[in-house]
Amino acid sequence: MFAAAERRLHTVTAEAYDEAIPDLRSALLSAHFKFRESPGSVLVVVSGADGAGKGELVHRLNEWLDPRGVETHAFWDFTDEEREHPAMWRYWRAMPGRGRVGILFGSWYTRPIICRVLKQQKRRSFEADLERIVTFERMLTDSGTRIVKLWLHLPKEHQRKRLKELEPLGRLGPDDWKHFKRYERFRDVSRQAMEHTHRPNAPWLIIDARDRRYRELSAGHALLAALRPPRGQRGGARSKATVKRDYAPGPARLETLDLSARLRKGAYERELKALQSRLSSLAWAAREVRHTTVLVFEGWDAGGKGSAIRRVTQAMDPRLYRVVGIAAPNDEERRHHYLWRFWRHVPRDGSFTIFDRSWYGRVLVERVEGFATMPEWDRSFGEINDFEAQLGAHGITVAKFWLHVSPEEQLRRFKERQRIAWKRHKITDEDWRNREKYPAYLEAVEEMLDRCSPPSAPWTLIAANDKRHARIAILRTLVERLEQALKL
Amino acid sequence: MFAAAERRLHTVTAEAYDEAIPDLRSALLSAHFKFRESPGSVLVVVSGADGAGKGELVHRLNEWLDPRGVETHAFWDFTDEEREHPAMWRYWRAMPGRGRVGILFGSWYTRPIICRVLKQQKRRSFEADLERIVTFERMLTDSGTRIVKLWLHLPKEHQRKRLKELEPLGRLGPDDWKHFKRYERFRDVSRQAMEHTHRPNAPWLIIDARDRRYRELSAGHALLAALRPPRGQRGGARSKATVKRDYAPGPARLETLDLSARLRKGAYERELKALQSRLSSLAWAAREVRHTTVLVFEGWDAGGKGSAIRRVTQAMDPRLYRVVGIAAPNDEERRHHYLWRFWRHVPRDGSFTIFDRSWYGRVLVERVEGFATMPEWDRSFGEINDFEAQLGAHGITVAKFWLHVSPEEQLRRFKERQRIAWKRHKITDEDWRNREKYPAYLEAVEEMLDRCSPPSAPWTLIAANDKRHARIAILRTLVERLEQALKL
Repeated sequence: MFAAAERRLHTVTAEAYDEAIPDLRSALLSAHFKFRESPGSVLVVVSGADGAGKGELVHRLNEWLDPRGVETHAFWDFTDEEREHPAMWRYWRAMPGRGRVGILFGSWYTRPIICRVLKQQKRRSFEADLERIVTFERMLTDSGTRIVKLWLHLPKEHQRKRLKELEPLGRLGPDDWKHFKRYERFRDVSRQAMEHTHRPNAPWLIIDARDRRYRELSAGHALLAALRPPRGQRGGARSKATVKRDYAPGPARLETLDLSARLRKGAYERELKALQSRLSSLAWAAREVRHTTVLVFEGWDAGGKGSAIRRVTQAMDPRLYRVVGIAAPNDEERRHHYLWRFWRHVPRDGSFTIFDRSWYGRVLVERVEGFATMPEWDRSFGEINDFEAQLGAHGITVAKFWLHVSPEEQLRRFKERQRIAWKRHKITDEDWRNREKYPAYLEAVEEMLDRCSPPSAPWTLIAANDKRHARIAILRTLVERLEQALKL
Repeated sequence: MFAAAERRLHTVTAEAYDEAIPDLRSALLSAHFKFRESPGSVLVVVSGADGAGKGELVHRLNEWLDPRGVETHAFWDFTDEEREHPAMWRYWRAMPGRGRVGILFGSWYTRPIICRVLKQQKRRSFEADLERIVTFERMLTDSGTRIVKLWLHLPKEHQRKRLKELEPLGRLGPDDWKHFKRYERFRDVSRQAMEHTHRPNAPWLIIDARDRRYRELSAGHALLAALRPPRGQRGGARSKATVKRDYAPGPARLETLDLSARLRKGAYERELKALQSRLSSLAWAAREVRHTTVLVFEGWDAGGKGSAIRRVTQAMDPRLYRVVGIAAPNDEERRHHYLWRFWRHVPRDGSFTIFDRSWYGRVLVERVEGFATMPEWDRSFGEINDFEAQLGAHGITVAKFWLHVSPEEQLRRFKERQRIAWKRHKITDEDWRNREKYPAYLEAVEEMLDRCSPPSAPWTLIAANDKRHARIAILRTLVERLEQALKL
């Protein structure tokens, strides 16, 4: 892969550079300006050998763009805060919004490559990391992000020379010489990483980094191409292309639920007390070992989510949990991938986060109401599974509850809400409209249950016609999941 | 202060409670619903004795409000991340936006009181903390936030009883008995804190916490009163009352600047190289000791801020700094106090944050263009000084630069920008309009320089008619400030 970059020395004369720059700069600025209205974003990943001029290039790209539309993120060693989140969290925080350019100095490639070079991880785990990166980049490009992956390459002797030049200027990082001693291994591991992740949607551009002018012009033109997609590819985020759905409905699961399940008041109060007391101890025990839990509550309107959540939180010290109510996204959220706002709420180790509605809105309300196109929500099933798998891989317990009520019970509750003063605000015209779309929602729910139920993050279906039964079922499931996770 | 709460046992019978609740709940909900359109927010601070039912009350208030308009924040011990920011940062993160209710379990009172009880801080430093709290709360209420400060009080014997009841349920925190042993000292220190911070704009409500029903109804009514301000006090955030300005202009400072200062190319390049090399070492040295620097760049349009900032960043590893460009606030930012969005960018220890425009927009563009009312921008001077003092108290170096160019030089640059292709985007109709308002801006700048120049965060006026001179002056000042701060 590096042979082409090494075959000859790629240089640009000072004259040619000075002549090319004005045109390139004004083309970049004008493309960047137009790009503000784009439904996608551009991510520039700057990677390569130590001493190859990555930092300098980052400065140059910044100089060439309109500062109001670009943000640069440099990634240092993982901070304690970053370590206490799933690995990709730090990168999600750095994602540019639509119409903006993000320049990343250091990226999701850095750690897998270094760990593999230093033999801190096995080949299989390295390859699993790369596979995860492919999935991640696919998700970004699917949603309209263009990824420019630059690799600044230096042959060995040039790297040695460069490091020697930088040393007296105090510009060397603490590990640069240490890494140089492993030049060949670095080259081979990097090549593997690039070969595995060189995909049509996110190809690598390897740049001969020996000559400053050459590498700057190459990078500049690659960025320009990303800001100006060829005709016919515009609006990638909302492609109208017909996508064939690759889904055959599974067996209906909601039907199997026994909605007649009931619990008497006495038994309810006994069980509630016992389960809440157990949950309280488990929450403290989880805190002790910094175990994290994410709870998802979804269900029909008036299904009893709010009051069920309160039965959970009553058992916990308020410092141990956070309830996140999900409504329509705000303007900042709308400018990002739909999962971005949920990544923001992924908790730090040692606490509970309870989502009152969640990322499943993508395949429920957004699907049924047409806020997302079919290709968009169809690929969300995989993206959501991947998201939850990342939580699981970090050791987070993910418990998801669907509160199921019959249409008749829902109607009864709507009417009750209108009668009781302090419940009246809970019922809106939208609720009545949603009711009319029951069949469409039912289809969406069944597909969600079918496609998003991995063993590590299963849905628990709750028969919720009887609130007492529902609350106890939820608490019991949660207690069991926690006992399992904490091995208690 | 607690005598009234202890004088008699305040109780509410179950019947009276059951009768009062429906009215209270529907009044709360309807007031909360209307409050969504309010230009202010409500903060409920829940404090008081261990075992007095704070957590339970937090749950109850949540139950009574519309979950979509309320957020609860519980404060644990400071995390590493919080420790690496100025102390108030954690609370700024938790501030509710306009039209919302924030419930705080634990607050800025907790740490000063505990530290004083355990004699970890002297009386004088405790009083300084309280004074800072008064300033902070004044700032919040000035901007339309209503603060409900609840103190749940328990006489000693009742606290003992409560802790004994809670112990077998696993609901005691690790320090509860330890604190109980110091009951009298806790009571006295808390009383001092409350007496000092009991102000008309943010009074304390002490609630006899022995009876659950009594404390819940008391808190509920206090919250209701905050959600429903008495007639005539509506729209506190944008009060039309005439405020008398208490400011006599100081001597004009910009006039004293020698705008003819120039630097030849040869001397410039020599100095630039030397200063950048020094700055590079200093940036690494600062990282080493986790010293933080905040740089503020303000100045006339076309004053050369962008290119001056690049001369600073060129000298630094991209992982050591972050440039924050400040434009108009987004909708989330607009729903908060104007300082909120700057608090978001206050860096963690060990890095540089460079603000390209800043919080001074409040007393510059917002003042001149009328986006802020006179009382609003007039009180901002003090709020800004307080903000920077908090950065300073945390050990952060604050360096502020005003880039001054003559109107003639500005005109020359505007015209040049229109000529050169890649500079054209930099000049907008707004720039020309701002130019017409030169006298109003000049007055605003002079007042800002006069009122916001404490010794710990001085303005450095930069004669910027000559860009080379300006860049060297900035770099030299920065290097000097860093050498001083790092004692190098």
